[in-house]
Amino acid sequence: MLKDTSTLAPKALDKSQTKLATAELLVKISKLQNVLYAQGKYSLLIILQGMDASGKDGAIKNVFSGINPLGTKLKAFKTPTEEEAKHDFLWRIHANAPEKGMIQLFNRSHYEDVLVPKVHKWVSEDVIEERYQHINNFEKLLQSNGTQILKFYLHISPEEQQIRLKERTENPEKFWKHSAKDKQEAAFWDEYKDAYENIFKKCNEMAKWIIVPADQNWYKDFVIATAVVECLEKLKLEYPPLQA
Amino acid sequence: MLKDTSTLAPKALDKSQTKLATAELLVKISKLQNVLYAQGKYSLLIILQGMDASGKDGAIKNVFSGINPLGTKLKAFKTPTEEEAKHDFLWRIHANAPEKGMIQLFNRSHYEDVLVPKVHKWVSEDVIEERYQHINNFEKLLQSNGTQILKFYLHISPEEQQIRLKERTENPEKFWKHSAKDKQEAAFWDEYKDAYENIFKKCNEMAKWIIVPADQNWYKDFVIATAVVECLEKLKLEYPPLQA
Repeated sequence: MLKDTSTLAPKALDKSQTKLATAELLVKISKLQNVLYAQGKYSLLIILQGMDASGKDGAIKNVFSGINPLGTKLKAFKTPTEEEAKHDFLWRIHANAPEKGMIQLFNRSHYEDVLVPKVHKWVSEDVIEERYQHINNFEKLLQSNGTQILKFYLHISPEEQQIRLKERTENPEKFWKHSAKDKQEAAFWDEYKDAYENIFKKCNEMAKWIIVPADQNWYKDFVIATAVVECLEKLKLEYPPLQA
Repeated sequence: MLKDTSTLAPKALDKSQTKLATAELLVKISKLQNVLYAQGKYSLLIILQGMDASGKDGAIKNVFSGINPLGTKLKAFKTPTEEEAKHDFLWRIHANAPEKGMIQLFNRSHYEDVLVPKVHKWVSEDVIEERYQHINNFEKLLQSNGTQILKFYLHISPEEQQIRLKERTENPEKFWKHSAKDKQEAAFWDEYKDAYENIFKKCNEMAKWIIVPADQNWYKDFVIATAVVECLEKLKLEYPPLQA
């Protein structure tokens, strides 16, 4: 699936025009979010996954900066804390599930628990298989409560990743993003790619993955914004009537 | 299932001897809990369900008062708060799932969500059926993390319930337990019984229900204490070796 998908925008696409189109989409998202919040019937969970330096932070900044913080929350999942590690892997995820009316952004997610432990063989394949099932059950539970789930995989090439990781060691404004661990993990590129392919196979049932060509930020932002607008428009959101 | 089960202790059973036996079981629970906590590998979730005045509070007091509070938590679930109601019904339950090493007591639980709404037809039967499935999936998730689940139904007769509800209006030490709502709900006795029968059928897969004859507190306490000891002994708990 990944190897047949380009990490680049379609050649015919014009960069400036696409950027303009994205700007229009962002205005739409902002308006739709307002109704989502006012109606309080649905919620939106946006999951961003991808290799290191695939642009998750950038996508959040570019696509969601214009949205009312009252109705938007961001949670970045890092290595589990001691308390989190004493619970099942979905405990900290569920705690951050959106309430009705909200847009919840996940920078990384429960999918990390079927990536890192699989690549490094910390747990058996049986455990990984069980986790796929737990994840599907969990996403079904959220959906039963009116939560829409958008799962984005930011698809970059290994070459683009190397360029970006290198930049983090050369540009003082990006030093803070540099981590020696990223280089170690980049060596497992193929294993991560396989683990993602498995996820796209096993956890595509409740909410479909959207593979986002992510070597060019302007195209990545456009694809994400398009999917968000489409998802919200499908809900036929409405401002609630005046309550007596 | 319920109608074939007595709400009374077996006739041959001696009350004083049983009370002595319970006292011995409580000492055992206290010792086992200590190892459970020290080892930090498993956890125990104890769910108490039953009609109003079936003795849930009393069971918690009588069976678990002697246990180290360091390793025990109690959560009583009431009508969902505004924040809780904006999430799926398992959100507040999951947040209170025990971490490794802990005993977590639930006075009422996620099973209320397939009782009250079903009896009063607030949601469709399809939604109730889906919830059974969500509950089974959820309990499976907890078990995958080493959580043992004990589900007790405190089985009292409608006659005994009436005596106890009346006492709450006559004994000044029990006034605080009186609620006009309890009498209203007692009128739905048969509907609640049917809803429980359904639960015993549909949610018995991951962790089996234990029907506790509960008209006599001394026998109720004995049955619960016995089940807790049996569950913890099966785990073959061990103090961890000295860490270098």
